[in-house]
Amino acid sequence: MSITQAQIAEIVARVRARRPLVHHITNYVTVNGVANITLCMGALPVMAQAKEEVEQMVEAAGALVLNLGTLWPEQVEAMVIAGRRANQLGIPIILDPVGAGATSLRTESALRLLNELSIAVVRGNAAEMAVLAGPAAGVEAKIKGVESIGGRADPAGIATELARRLHCVAAVTGPVDGVCDGTRCVRVANGHAMMGKVTGTGCMATAVIGACAAVEADFVLATATALAAYGLSGERAAAQSRGPGTFQVQLLDALAELSAQDLLSGVRVKEERAPA
Amino acid sequence: MSITQAQIAEIVARVRARRPLVHHITNYVTVNGVANITLCMGALPVMAQAKEEVEQMVEAAGALVLNLGTLWPEQVEAMVIAGRRANQLGIPIILDPVGAGATSLRTESALRLLNELSIAVVRGNAAEMAVLAGPAAGVEAKIKGVESIGGRADPAGIATELARRLHCVAAVTGPVDGVCDGTRCVRVANGHAMMGKVTGTGCMATAVIGACAAVEADFVLATATALAAYGLSGERAAAQSRGPGTFQVQLLDALAELSAQDLLSGVRVKEERAPA
Amino acid sequence: MSITQAQIAEIVARVRARRPLVHHITNYVTVNGVANITLCMGALPVMAQAKEEVEQMVEAAGALVLNLGTLWPEQVEAMVIAGRRANQLGIPIILDPVGAGATSLRTESALRLLNELSIAVVRGNAAEMAVLAGPAAGVEAKIKGVESIGGRADPAGIATELARRLHCVAAVTGPVDGVCDGTRCVRVANGHAMMGKVTGTGCMATAVIGACAAVEADFVLATATALAAYGLSGERAAAQSRGPGTFQVQLLDALAELSAQDLLSGVRVKEERAPA
Repeated sequence: MSITQAQIAEIVARVRARRPLVHHITNYVTVNGVANITLCMGALPVMAQAKEEVEQMVEAAGALVLNLGTLWPEQVEAMVIAGRRANQLGIPIILDPVGAGATSLRTESALRLLNELSIAVVRGNAAEMAVLAGPAAGVEAKIKGVESIGGRADPAGIATELARRLHCVAAVTGPVDGVCDGTRCVRVANGHAMMGKVTGTGCMATAVIGACAAVEADFVLATATALAAYGLSGERAAAQSRGPGTFQVQLLDALAELSAQDLLSGVRVKEERAPA
Repeated sequence: MSITQAQIAEIVARVRARRPLVHHITNYVTVNGVANITLCMGALPVMAQAKEEVEQMVEAAGALVLNLGTLWPEQVEAMVIAGRRANQLGIPIILDPVGAGATSLRTESALRLLNELSIAVVRGNAAEMAVLAGPAAGVEAKIKGVESIGGRADPAGIATELARRLHCVAAVTGPVDGVCDGTRCVRVANGHAMMGKVTGTGCMATAVIGACAAVEADFVLATATALAAYGLSGERAAAQSRGPGTFQVQLLDALAELSAQDLLSGVRVKEERAPA
Repeated sequence: MSITQAQIAEIVARVRARRPLVHHITNYVTVNGVANITLCMGALPVMAQAKEEVEQMVEAAGALVLNLGTLWPEQVEAMVIAGRRANQLGIPIILDPVGAGATSLRTESALRLLNELSIAVVRGNAAEMAVLAGPAAGVEAKIKGVESIGGRADPAGIATELARRLHCVAAVTGPVDGVCDGTRCVRVANGHAMMGKVTGTGCMATAVIGACAAVEADFVLATATALAAYGLSGERAAAQSRGPGTFQVQLLDALAELSAQDLLSGVRVKEERAPA
């Protein structure tokens, strides 16, 4: 059985009906876009990272999104504290390992979170995810700052390898996104090249996954839904934009006004069995 | 005697003529919008929160805006230090207790600032303000993250209660805003539902209050002016917007170009005596 | 020999071809715009300020941009650590002394960075730069928060004085920008008054200088190129804007789509010998 456009449209409708709270511990570069895209998806964002309050905040949330974009050691501590409480309560955690591979601090912090917490979904670009899969995974990728460059590995292949090693859902985003839990894989072919020309589009993708994971416990399905709806919004925004500035604005409008009909006709997903 | 549209237009003109410096110690989610809305109102924003410099910075300011949106303990210390200096110099302090009620840290930090400093104006949504008024105030409200949900209490009622308990001007914003000093109440009926669909519109309202309080010592009048001008800009921006992304952009343009004539014809305020 | 429009167009093309990584340690007010303008210029931004990772991050960068907009002591330490490593590797450092003169912390931190590091380019408004030049420089300027007000000094004059005292390239931006290394001076007459009406346009100018300095070791030329291309984008954006909100959006589009032909016909630079 394969994921259908109707399932995706139904999950988006569920987010909008339930308005789950999504607790973000995130970077200060893209945080405004992350909050707004969460709202445009239909969920409620809250940003809180004081160690003194993260446990109490996550208790009210439907999902916890951890983003390493401008990490510092105390922030990572807050992520662990919030994450442990989320795990106790069965609240799904989504991890965005921004810049894993660029510095030891980033790689080690991402691996620490993956080891110490039960992560539901990890989403990154090919380079970040190849680093987390480890050199033995045999995938090649190169990172420049926080940008994946020149890697030619198959996203679904990296996602499969990572999902099996880390026992979570892995989502590798790029021209075609690969989402895998080690057994099932979904390719999402929505999105637009303009998404690579503004900052924060990766962080925003992770935020939308958080909104969907708050209402759908099949995290492959939740993640594919998020990436399809978000990618389709990117396509529609690009058609209305002259450049990166207007695109950033149109992207919010496009996701906010995305209808069930848009999803039924525009989503391009394909489910397959993971390679053995 | 009631507040008039002419008074409001005159105060807005005063902000633009004097260009007061507004010192913000604020959250990193909405800080860019807060800085820009301050500029669009005609004032000059400055963001500074190192404990080593906040006293010196506030000395040059016409108002100090304290926003708890992404508080951490050291930031709250900086707020107290800046606030004490502001109080010594008679510089008005505006408090935005973002998320009061959502965590103990937020509630306690807001109450601490209200107790240790002389606050001129506190502005929040119905839930945040009901929490600060205390359970004995008998107002009901529910907070989800930093969003007020489902409360049905009258904004002017909460504002009256809070103003009397805290001896400051209280502004409860929502579909109709209530501004009260315990005796006089003003209802401001400007604004648009779109303001609830983007992040930071509450923080920006508080920033605009700061700009007005810097030039007008009648803080009920200053606050009503700010909420009316800002709300009217929201109405005009919504008429130009397709969704939350374009609205966020148009809101800045709308406030920057708001004319005396716009204010005279578009402001909807009503003053009344507070209930006994 | 004078700087030509053809040289400027060639350097912009070089940024776009090489896509240098620009490492920013910067403020949280304007950081999103800084990241996006870096991308729109054709370079790759990365923001990282944990002391534990800044050395490793800057090793991969073509330039390091230090911005004091919301400084705190630990951040300044990270700037020194990153800056020392950049100096060892010959990676140019660009300094934006936001608010120098407004508080002692800002002035002293800027001077400390100028003393302890070898800075390639320092860019500020007239007031900030006059403060750094020192009272003996005989230039007058007044700062209000982080805004330069009322100074009537000649930008090129301040830049010359500062370049000679600090042995670096100094860029004073305003209606006409002055760029000087103590011997050569370039005046850049591109830009638009709208750039003074939104927050972050100064920070973004510094970011664009970083992108150019990463590919051109003649820092007078690199800085003039950056200010001309950025200023020309501001002119083109203003022609498409109704107010500050739309301008901020159009500025990103304008820089991203700026062509060699636009530069050849629109850049207004004039090189001269510095006064004796």
